[in-house]
Formats: sequence, structure tokens, C-alpha cells
Amino acid sequence: MLEDLKKSVCQANLDLVRHGLVVLTWGNVSAIDRQTNLVVIKPSGVSYDNMKAEDMVVVDLDGNVIDGNLRPSSDTPTHLEIYKAFKEVGAVVHTHSTCATAWAQACREIPNLGTTHADTFYHAIPCTAEMTKAQIEEAYEANTGVVIREAFEGINPMHTPAVLVAHHGPFTWGKSAKEAVQNSVILEEVAKMATMTLTLNPSIEMNGDLVEKHYNRKHGANAYYGQK
Amino acid sequence: MLEDLKKSVCQANLDLVRHGLVVLTWGNVSAIDRQTNLVVIKPSGVSYDNMKAEDMVVVDLDGNVIDGNLRPSSDTPTHLEIYKAFKEVGAVVHTHSTCATAWAQACREIPNLGTTHADTFYHAIPCTAEMTKAQIEEAYEANTGVVIREAFEGINPMHTPAVLVAHHGPFTWGKSAKEAVQNSVILEEVAKMATMTLTLNPSIEMNGDLVEKHYNRKHGANAYYGQK
Amino acid sequence: MLEDLKKSVCQANLDLVRHGLVVLTWGNVSAIDRQTNLVVIKPSGVSYDNMKAEDMVVVDLDGNVIDGNLRPSSDTPTHLEIYKAFKEVGAVVHTHSTCATAWAQACREIPNLGTTHADTFYHAIPCTAEMTKAQIEEAYEANTGVVIREAFEGINPMHTPAVLVAHHGPFTWGKSAKEAVQNSVILEEVAKMATMTLTLNPSIEMNGDLVEKHYNRKHGANAYYGQK
Amino acid sequence: MLEDLKKSVCQANLDLVRHGLVVLTWGNVSAIDRQTNLVVIKPSGVSYDNMKAEDMVVVDLDGNVIDGNLRPSSDTPTHLEIYKAFKEVGAVVHTHSTCATAWAQACREIPNLGTTHADTFYHAIPCTAEMTKAQIEEAYEANTGVVIREAFEGINPMHTPAVLVAHHGPFTWGKSAKEAVQNSVILEEVAKMATMTLTLNPSIEMNGDLVEKHYNRKHGANAYYGQK
Repeated sequence: MLEDLKKSVCQANLDLVRHGLVVLTWGNVSAIDRQTNLVVIKPSGVSYDNMKAEDMVVVDLDGNVIDGNLRPSSDTPTHLEIYKAFKEVGAVVHTHSTCATAWAQACREIPNLGTTHADTFYHAIPCTAEMTKAQIEEAYEANTGVVIREAFEGINPMHTPAVLVAHHGPFTWGKSAKEAVQNSVILEEVAKMATMTLTLNPSIEMNGDLVEKHYNRKHGANAYYGQK
Repeated sequence: MLEDLKKSVCQANLDLVRHGLVVLTWGNVSAIDRQTNLVVIKPSGVSYDNMKAEDMVVVDLDGNVIDGNLRPSSDTPTHLEIYKAFKEVGAVVHTHSTCATAWAQACREIPNLGTTHADTFYHAIPCTAEMTKAQIEEAYEANTGVVIREAFEGINPMHTPAVLVAHHGPFTWGKSAKEAVQNSVILEEVAKMATMTLTLNPSIEMNGDLVEKHYNRKHGANAYYGQK
Repeated sequence: MLEDLKKSVCQANLDLVRHGLVVLTWGNVSAIDRQTNLVVIKPSGVSYDNMKAEDMVVVDLDGNVIDGNLRPSSDTPTHLEIYKAFKEVGAVVHTHSTCATAWAQACREIPNLGTTHADTFYHAIPCTAEMTKAQIEEAYEANTGVVIREAFEGINPMHTPAVLVAHHGPFTWGKSAKEAVQNSVILEEVAKMATMTLTLNPSIEMNGDLVEKHYNRKHGANAYYGQK
Repeated sequence: MLEDLKKSVCQANLDLVRHGLVVLTWGNVSAIDRQTNLVVIKPSGVSYDNMKAEDMVVVDLDGNVIDGNLRPSSDTPTHLEIYKAFKEVGAVVHTHSTCATAWAQACREIPNLGTTHADTFYHAIPCTAEMTKAQIEEAYEANTGVVIREAFEGINPMHTPAVLVAHHGPFTWGKSAKEAVQNSVILEEVAKMATMTLTLNPSIEMNGDLVEKHYNRKHGANAYYGQK
């Protein structure tokens, strides 16, 4: 079932490796079929070397395995919470990419310091609240989704498709698995640039007009970037 | 038309990838035929994977598409302003290369701290003024060219063929597309070294005599670097 | 003798290169056969280019060469001390990987700042005491093992399978050569992230509850990460 | 003439590229035949892509071209000064490798902070004095050799086979072209580690006993590193 989605999710997982965003078996991609509310996700702790589309696991929004012989990623409940909270999301990516994870470990949002950021992310990349002892001990992965949702109060998650989970690492999303992976690539680059920018000028901030312009020339009603 | 120029512009775009200066579809190269005042430029938002010489777009100095089936880069008006302002420029490159972009985001010029810089760039790499709300909202890309031109008052753009656009990223240029790409490569390296140098010695400056010597042994009237 | 162990130790040495953890001939891997107390280790100062399983050297726990035509690694006495001190260790890796070595040179333990660390290492990565003049001049390599053992007083070495030797570099270990190499890979990544994290937030610390959760979901009695 | 030396010098130049130490055409290697006092050196400003042994240029110690159709490297007089000043040197390498160049630009010596440094370099890597206006304007490249020689007063150049030229970059040397290239590789790694070490602990210093031990176990009278 969902063979095409399995293929695109498998390919997206392999693309994480190709883009240098994962070490060993870290990282996972899922995508949802919004008609059936079924989610295709990478199996847990499996090597990327021989990963095939048929290894992908299908779960429903309650986390029940519907199809597949392997265990789904241990981060599955976080992915499911994101799909439930953000209705336009079609795919979710989690990595421990170096620079974005450093910002997450520092418990700092990544400020919008340049057009590289503003071309893809309208706001600063939010960092979640630190989780409470109760949230950690009970349903930890689902509660990770809860603090992500809470970090987006007043922020459109489709305009800023990325978050840092405090002390953990980044999640990104998009309409498709391919777009969600691209957002992970861009987030890592933005995190690297922001670190160096603040070293060179600790008090720098960016003009909101430039954010407006760059975000909208790619994503606004009158976008004119790329081909028609 | 302009088939040779299309080939060299296409190759230069691919060289940006090979040199690790671009992520995804970022970056663009153009070159001008000074006889006809026609400019060959990369199409907007197209993947590098299958880019061919015939995908390049030909525009005139007013930005009208003269040849090609794709939209030209959204940065085309900036390239055109540079060709109009700096008459000796034969090709222009724009990237979001990591370290040069960090300096641009920090709104700092890159000081001339060593012979690696002085071998190619005579002055510090200028950083433009931040653009006004009016400049951003109306003809943004052309105005990017305007602030670049203004940053070179009193500076010969052929002696320092690179600029940082504040909060955005670098543009470089040269006699040919190949030379403009080389200048992007060198700029990125110079930006990386300058960041580390200032970490190691925040107050360091370089003797002007050494700039004079190194710049001139490669580019002066009695240059003696390279083959005859 | 011990042909299978020689193969896995040789492969593990080559994996260090593949993971970018070694420069030139630096780094070495050993593994122990706990039935016979014989240790298979890389020869000293040999190029990785043509390294073969039969080049591996077999020594006993007193350092006597039992099999092999080459000299064992000059770090052999350190490996042997680790096997004698930590009875569950099956393999040991030593590298001079860039970031972990920088922490070792700084004589600082790597604090547990995020789940990337806590997924593999329960505690901070300890840094040994600096060695005394007497320890350095007499049986230096064996004494390196002694200060490693002393750094683990009150710490379970199987829960935190890595150490930094002050002014020198990291050692990691594991049940198998493959696992010990993976721990070197993770340590280097953790060291890189921690450096950047402390640049972004010098006073950050991580909640112990999150350490407990992440370490145990992979390694605890009710671990649920990976496949059954 | 000197065909074997040409081959090893050509290979050493290509090895600089393979080790990631050069950008574009930067960097050069030479080697001397001490019987005839003839020096084989890379031609100036030539691409590495098609470099062949027969492109190498032979010069005498006064810089006269004895064999070859191309101009020798513009840095030739510096190489010659090093051969004249340090009689045991068999080969010289010059690069603009990123981290070592950053230290040179910062006009700081690289302190000996760990065994990675001490395994190859006994002292701190010296940084030359800044050159005077007269030294720069007249016989600049030869005077670069002069300030290098002066930086080694009281230091054995064979025990610390590397130097930083202020505001310029590193030179290394060795018995052979291969060894000189290896020393460039190690210098770059040592420079990278030292930068990060001082970020983590600005006041750290290393015990001289450890330097003595590590340097001598590889290079002393009773060296026991590597194969017999």
C-alpha cells in the first residue's frame, strides 16, 4: 500500500545522507496521505546502506502499525503530533544536523539575519520550551510534538517550516518529503551562517522590510522567483 | 545566438557547485557580450543537475528576454546594473557562499588581512549600505545594483572585484565567467580566513606595503606571477 | 590465529579513515578475545592504503607479541590497561579526531548538553588528570591507561564509553570493534556540537531527566529504539 | 635531468590538492639535489589538472633556470633562501592552507598544546617578524626567506619543520618532498585544533615533559614509533 509515498519517503531519507545531514542511522523522514490519514515513516535504527522503499512502515494517526515488518522510528509519535497540529503539513523530517542541533542545545531561536533565511523562513526559527519532568517521563515523544505545537502560537507553521526542540535538535516540514528535506538543508545552512554572523557582529539585526520582500518574492501572492 | 557565451556561462554555473559555493539552486552567473550589449544569464530556480547551455537566457540591458524559453534569474536586474555601472566587467557571479554571506549578514566589510586577499583584492571587500524601505519595495533587485555601485565610490571595481550586499550575500565579477567564478572561490576562502584571524587577534591590521607588493606582482604593470 | 577478529579489527581501522577521523597513519583499533585474553591490534605507523587483516598483530595482556610480523601500535600498553581495568570492554579505538582532541588539549570534560550526547553517553565525557613527570618518563603508555582508569572512579565505563586524555586525545570503546568505532564517530560529532553550543550560550546546562530518558530508551532495561 | 626528483616534486604538488590544502593554483613544492645544488620546483600559476613531471623547472641556488620551458614559481627565491639557511632540508612546501594561514595573518605563533603537535613539531610554530618597507620593495621573496631564517635563531629547523610568514602563510620542509607535504598536512590540522582549543580554554598550556616524551618517541635516539 502507498507504494509511491514509500518510494518518496525512502528517497528523502537517502537524500538526508547525500546532503551530509545525518551521522550513522540518525534522522528520519515521514509523509502523510491526507485522504486516508496514513503516515509512511522510516523504520527505527536501520542502516541507510541497504534501505529500500518496502522497508518503510505505515502507521495510522494513533501510531498503530498498518503495514510493514519493521518497527517505525522511535520518533513516530512526534511526527504524528505535528500532522495533527499542522493540517497543511505533508511531510516531516527530523535530523541531528550539526549546527541546527547546536542552536537547539543552546536553547536559542535562530534569528532572521539575512535573505538566505528569509527566502524560506519568515520568522526566527523557534526553539521549544524545555520539557517538564512529567512531559519527559510520560509519552515523551508525543509531548515533544506538544511543545513544538506550543512554540507556534501566533506563527504560521507553513511560513516558517522548522523548529528547534530544546536540548534535542531540529524538525522541519513541507508539502512533500522532498520539500521537507530541502528545508532541513536550508535550516542547517542558515544555522551555520547565523553562528558566524553573530561572532562577527553580536548585536546585528535585520530590517523587517527585507524579510517581507524576500519571503514574498518566493512565496507571496505575486511571487516571481523560479519558473511559472 | 551567443552559443559560446551560453556554454561558458553554463559551465561557470556548474563550477559554482563543484567548488562547494552553492546549496540547492542558489547562485547564478551571467556574462555580457559588450559588442551587442546582450547578457547571458542562468534561468531562475532551476536545478543544476540537468542544466544545459541551451537553458541559458539572453536579455538586453533593459531586462527584455531576447532568447530562451525560461525565465531569467530573479537577480537579473542586479547583474544589469553592475554591467551598466562598471564598464570593464565581462561577467558577474552571485552566491550565498557560507562565510562571505556571514560577513554580509554582519554588515561588515572584509578587511585586507593577508596576501591571500591582496593577491586578488586590493581593498577591503566593501559592504553596501542597508537599503531603505523605498529601495526595497520598488525595483528591489535593480536597487541592489545601485547600492553596489555606491559602495565603489573611490574604489576601482576591477582592482577589488567583489562586494557584500548587506544582509544578503556576495557578488563578484571579472573579465570572463571563469574569472568571476574564481573570484567567488577566493572571496569565500578569504572570508573564512578573516573570521578565524580576527578570532585569534581581534586588533590585527596589515601593512599597506605588503598589499601594494602582492597586488602588483600579480596585476601591476610589471606583474611577474604566472606564465607569460 | 584469531582470523575473524583480525578481519574486524582491520575493517574497523579502515572505517576510521572512511569516517574522516584520521589523518595520515594516526589512529588505531584493537579488540580482545576474552576467552584467551589475546588482543588483536593495528601495527605501528603503517599506511592505511594497503592495510590487510594479516598485518594485524596479536599480543597478550602483558604486551608480548604472540603472532604477526610487524610491531604493534606504540599505544598498545594503553589499550591493554583499558582491557584490564574495564572487564566488559571488547574493543578500543584511539584517534586524534579534530574536535575531541581540541577538548582534550583544553583539558575540559565535554558536558552532556543534548540528546545526541545522551543517546550514547550517560555522563559528561571525562578528561583525565594531567600526567606527572614520573608517569610520563616511565611506562608512559601504560600510565596513560592508569589515568584513564582513575577518571572513571564512580562512572560505569560501559555507560560512557569514551574518555579524553589530557593534552592528547580521545579513546573510545565498546563490545565490538564496530561499536567502538561508532562511539568515536559520535564522540567527534558531540565534541563539535558542544563547542558551538557553548559559543552560542556559555552557561547552558541540560536537565538530568532528559539524559535519563534518552539514555534509557536506547540502552535501558525497557529500551525501545531500533529493531528487536 | 633530475627525472626522479621531478616525479616526486610533481607528485607532492598533486598530493597538496588531494589533502585539501590548496585552492585553484595556490601552493608549491620544491626539492633539492644536494650533490649538484640544483632545485626542482613547480612552475608559476599553472593548473594542477594536467600537471606533469616534465613541467617542473630546474633552477640553481642563484635562481637561474637550468632546465624547463616554464617560469618557476614566483616564490622560488624564498625556497632557495631556505635551502641556503637550513642545510639538512631536502624539500620545501608553501601553501595558503586555511587555518595555518589564519594564524599567519594573526601574526601569532602556534603554541604546542598537545601530542598531535609534539609528535612532529618540538617547539611552537614560529611566526616571522613583519617585513619592513625596504624588505618588501626590494627582493621581496628572498627577504621572505631571510625573516624565516631569523625566526629560527635558537631553534633547530629539523625539529620544528614549519614556519608562519606574518600576514602571508605557512612554509614547511623535510628530508623529502613527501615528508614536507606531510608536515603541511599536520601543520594545518594542528592549527585547526589550536584555534578550537584556545576557544575552549584561553589560558591552557602544555607540560614540557609531555613534549619531550612525544617528540622523542618518534624522533629521538631511542624512537620506538613505527616499524624498524
